Amino acid sequence: MGDLPIVRIGVDLGGTKIFTVALKGTEVVAEAKSKTPVQGGPLAVVDAMAATVRALGVGSEAEAVGVGAPGVIDFRSGVVHSAPNLTGWVEPFRLGPALSEALGGTSVTVDNDVNVGTVAEHQMGAAVGSRDVLGVFVGTGVGGGLILNNRLRRGASGYAGEIGHVVVRPGGRRCGCGGRGHLEAYAGRAGMERRARQHEARGRDTLLVELSRTRRMTSSVFARALEARDPIAVALVDRAVETLGLALSMATTLMDIPMVVLGGGLADRLGPSFVARVEEAALALVPNGRADTLRVVPAALSDRGGAIGAALSARVRRPRSSAADGRARVTT
Amino acid sequence: MGDLPIVRIGVDLGGTKIFTVALKGTEVVAEAKSKTPVQGGPLAVVDAMAATVRALGVGSEAEAVGVGAPGVIDFRSGVVHSAPNLTGWVEPFRLGPALSEALGGTSVTVDNDVNVGTVAEHQMGAAVGSRDVLGVFVGTGVGGGLILNNRLRRGASGYAGEIGHVVVRPGGRRCGCGGRGHLEAYAGRAGMERRARQHEARGRDTLLVELSRTRRMTSSVFARALEARDPIAVALVDRAVETLGLALSMATTLMDIPMVVLGGGLADRLGPSFVARVEEAALALVPNGRADTLRVVPAALSDRGGAIGAALSARVRRPRSSAADGRARVTT
Repeated sequence: MGDLPIVRIGVDLGGTKIFTVALKGTEVVAEAKSKTPVQGGPLAVVDAMAATVRALGVGSEAEAVGVGAPGVIDFRSGVVHSAPNLTGWVEPFRLGPALSEALGGTSVTVDNDVNVGTVAEHQMGAAVGSRDVLGVFVGTGVGGGLILNNRLRRGASGYAGEIGHVVVRPGGRRCGCGGRGHLEAYAGRAGMERRARQHEARGRDTLLVELSRTRRMTSSVFARALEARDPIAVALVDRAVETLGLALSMATTLMDIPMVVLGGGLADRLGPSFVARVEEAALALVPNGRADTLRVVPAALSDRGGAIGAALSARVRRPRSSAADGRARVTT
Repeated sequence: MGDLPIVRIGVDLGGTKIFTVALKGTEVVAEAKSKTPVQGGPLAVVDAMAATVRALGVGSEAEAVGVGAPGVIDFRSGVVHSAPNLTGWVEPFRLGPALSEALGGTSVTVDNDVNVGTVAEHQMGAAVGSRDVLGVFVGTGVGGGLILNNRLRRGASGYAGEIGHVVVRPGGRRCGCGGRGHLEAYAGRAGMERRARQHEARGRDTLLVELSRTRRMTSSVFARALEARDPIAVALVDRAVETLGLALSMATTLMDIPMVVLGGGLADRLGPSFVARVEEAALALVPNGRADTLRVVPAALSDRGGAIGAALSARVRRPRSSAADGRARVTT
């Protein structure tokens, strides 16, 4: 291959969809996708991931594969410890080694989906050129990634960036994790849906429930109810804006980070006006003088960010011996 | 000097006191102190600092001087931009170069007092061995410093660690900086004093005001009123514990930092039971599983931490030419 840019593959493993890209340097040269199997557990998911990688058609050109996965990931070993959004993933599973084996020994790196999403926005998206970046992804839940001095911060236990579980209302709404008053309970789609259904149960009708009688209360449902000025939807989104603004003001003040990228399914669907409102809410709460430098911008890579970031995060393994045993030696 | 450990001098410039130490390696070999001049502005302060350095008696052995100063510091240039606690410091002042000149050309490094305090606790105090440390100093105000991966984080504008100005109560108490609901308004001595005087003005007598008729409402006054179970003092300290716990839970969750050192005049005076209460409040608010690893511990170096940290932060200048012009060439 000589001087050619290396080819890396990125796999975004989502609760409903597996999306893969092949990256030559920083150019996306192929894409593929499939549904995430809901039966057969981790092994079925690995098979589907491997098939989606093969569908890219880059074959042996690929020097490394990166995976962005939801849940608690051990970056060093490639183990997914828990992934609440994936059906049947109860026990810790060695995803990295298993996918490597399915791909004939290619090096596989596994990281958190929001970490790789932040890496993607930093290297190829809305935050190119920023030395310090906080990436916040608002979807079913709320996740975050931290780039400090151009490096991803993992933290002492691998949890750095977990902005969804900071307390924005002491004693407030119950979060999916069991905690109280966490940002995710106010700004994540699942928390907002729970709240909407509580209102409905108490006799306060809302378009949110009406529009999701036969399907999930998706980000599009929120967008439509908001456009129709449904009072419950308006109030829920107001609260999401307010709590996101508070959390972003705290995070950026504490770490002195001038750039926040706001992405994820719900933020993407509600669009730039939502991001602008969050920016305004954050700016109103940062100390004197900081408002001039802080920016909150929409993610630029949309739902391709996860796969692109996974590819960018893939570590190319230097061959030390023949990989005859087919096991990954994940570079750390 | 050959193989001997280098001698560095640290100067803690406080609102009332200048405290200096000479450090040989990590051993304190001399200490000196003087009052901070309240007349004559920055030049008088520089003279007093230089005299206190000379009083150490280490003479030309010292290879570098570090200063920890309050206010907004430009670490690279040694300029103190604003120092509200120092009388007559209105304009930005080139403290580093001026002190270097007064000391005959010795290299001088100037940094924020809480940054150097955190460095001291990390290298020689309560957080030795911790890779990631949040240092929080509760005195007149509330300041913080961040060590991430064993390095001090300054942030994009030099403000990193400014935990005193994160919002813990949206729309809450007015902070000295003009903001609302900042931690400093609830947990800093000045904010607590303002609140105590408001209560008094509204007819709610408090020992805090009683004990400070003829002197300042010092940390000792708070400690004595608390011991006497003065209801206003109890309520103010409860609120300080609660808001510190909230801010620490957010900061440590976000950055995944397992070690917080809590120091400063008020925390030192209220003692380990105060720190233990703050730890308890923080642990109650961190996500599931984190409470096992997070620790909030009292600062170990007390009021010597600032000077020790300033010495540890002093950069030894490599001579590039004769320093005949007597001007500092502050190493950056």
